[in-house]
Amino acid sequence: MTTQAIKTGTSARLAARSNTLPPIINLSQIAPGHIHAHILILPSPYTADFRLLCARNPVALPLLAESTKPGIFDAVKSRVAWLEDDEVLLRQHVDLRRDVGGFTVWRDGEVFTDGQGMEDVVSEWKDDHVAFVIASEGSIEAALRQAGLLEGRIPHPPMYRTRKPLFPSGTFYDCEMVVSMRSFSAAETGQVRQVTAPFALAHGEPIDWGWGAVGRLGIRDIDMPEWGERPVTRNGRALGEVAWKDDEVPVFWGSGVTAQEAVAKMELPGTVMANAVGEYLVLDCKDEDVARVS
Amino acid sequence: MTTQAIKTGTSARLAARSNTLPPIINLSQIAPGHIHAHILILPSPYTADFRLLCARNPVALPLLAESTKPGIFDAVKSRVAWLEDDEVLLRQHVDLRRDVGGFTVWRDGEVFTDGQGMEDVVSEWKDDHVAFVIASEGSIEAALRQAGLLEGRIPHPPMYRTRKPLFPSGTFYDCEMVVSMRSFSAAETGQVRQVTAPFALAHGEPIDWGWGAVGRLGIRDIDMPEWGERPVTRNGRALGEVAWKDDEVPVFWGSGVTAQEAVAKMELPGTVMANAVGEYLVLDCKDEDVARVS
Repeated sequence: MTTQAIKTGTSARLAARSNTLPPIINLSQIAPGHIHAHILILPSPYTADFRLLCARNPVALPLLAESTKPGIFDAVKSRVAWLEDDEVLLRQHVDLRRDVGGFTVWRDGEVFTDGQGMEDVVSEWKDDHVAFVIASEGSIEAALRQAGLLEGRIPHPPMYRTRKPLFPSGTFYDCEMVVSMRSFSAAETGQVRQVTAPFALAHGEPIDWGWGAVGRLGIRDIDMPEWGERPVTRNGRALGEVAWKDDEVPVFWGSGVTAQEAVAKMELPGTVMANAVGEYLVLDCKDEDVARVS
Repeated sequence: MTTQAIKTGTSARLAARSNTLPPIINLSQIAPGHIHAHILILPSPYTADFRLLCARNPVALPLLAESTKPGIFDAVKSRVAWLEDDEVLLRQHVDLRRDVGGFTVWRDGEVFTDGQGMEDVVSEWKDDHVAFVIASEGSIEAALRQAGLLEGRIPHPPMYRTRKPLFPSGTFYDCEMVVSMRSFSAAETGQVRQVTAPFALAHGEPIDWGWGAVGRLGIRDIDMPEWGERPVTRNGRALGEVAWKDDEVPVFWGSGVTAQEAVAKMELPGTVMANAVGEYLVLDCKDEDVARVS
């Protein structure tokens, strides 16, 4: 199947289920305009704390939905008042164990999978697993592209661990935020903030920007992201080479990868699963659905 | 009127309106079990950004409601799905200009009032003012009292400026969180977290605790709070004297005073109003209404 043939959330999920999803260069190629979401699957003892972790840290963890009850993998309940469960969010055909291009699996806190991960987690899914659906940065990237601010940029933005603590929630404490980065000219940062701000349910506006942000966030090395590609300037240089010298500055957003880092750090007993980095659950709702507050 | 006579949100608001509210020693004395809220009143050009500031920083700014449209001071719209506007939140009788014991007023960024502030803001209210209703820490204090963890504690907890940045929202950037502090034995902190965690719509569990938190939050001097009373230990000593030595440790929560600090720092043009510190808008809904997530 080609990317051009995948125009809806349902068709993207069915392609993932049948392992016919083509390699994705950027999120806007698959089911354009639809929300691409992270998925995190936890044993039920940790779900109440994780739900509150999302509520307390919505910039990193914008929770859109969760499975209706432990063990259920084919129905979700919206956590957003105006996204109705069956009509808008996931119109039909969902299998949370199979509808993502690749899964990462942890067992008792150890990663069990490598690279693109497992094609499905049917064999791992237990009766007490609960799945959480968290918005990705696809919607803000689409908005930046439409505004002409992301032309020619790298497809997999660099992501970094930070020393910015999450607000704790029960089991989940001493966790830190993961951020993604895209660079812009300093003069563009105002427009970048304005264009992304409305998408408050999908990370929204940047959390910090400019070279000072690197230190404030506690990022180790701008040229050594923990995930994604190394950042390059418009002129093809390593971004770190122009630090404080050029007009180009890093701009940081909260990233849903924060969820995986939190569960990995907590070394939860049992089996935890998540979308592999760069793979997503595609929903039937649209980018504009996460661009309102009430 | 005595505090004993004020048992409902409506009676508390009417007492404030007629300036017969008695001096309050602690929130649990007035309309026990009802939610005591902060109120922030802004000119309409800043309300969209402030609404998103709350959405991005719910631990400090748990937004419960706002006035229905600019200029309206006698009706609010709930921002929480299960708190219906008229039935639960503010059953009847609200005048957002008069129903708080005292108001602080800023004009073009300068504080215009002192001490307990103005008894009402009828003369300041303009047709483009919008009021925001933000949960206070009354609900978590009540929960701590019921659990026997706050007996004999000081009525006005110390509050501190921190260097912990808020996630920015448009006009509001470079703002920092205000926290409140209560001290407990180190062994109690687990119970303190558990007891307060459910109140996720009213600050919820602590954001940090222990003596290391003072540095992590960037608090200048534990014995010199910016608001409230100086902290004393169970044995009556200044809390700072026992730092790292005694069993007693500080525990910090996000504070709704963060809202006032943010608007003051931004030096917004026009007239901004808020409840004076220690004065609240009492609602008709109950503490248990902010102890659920969905």
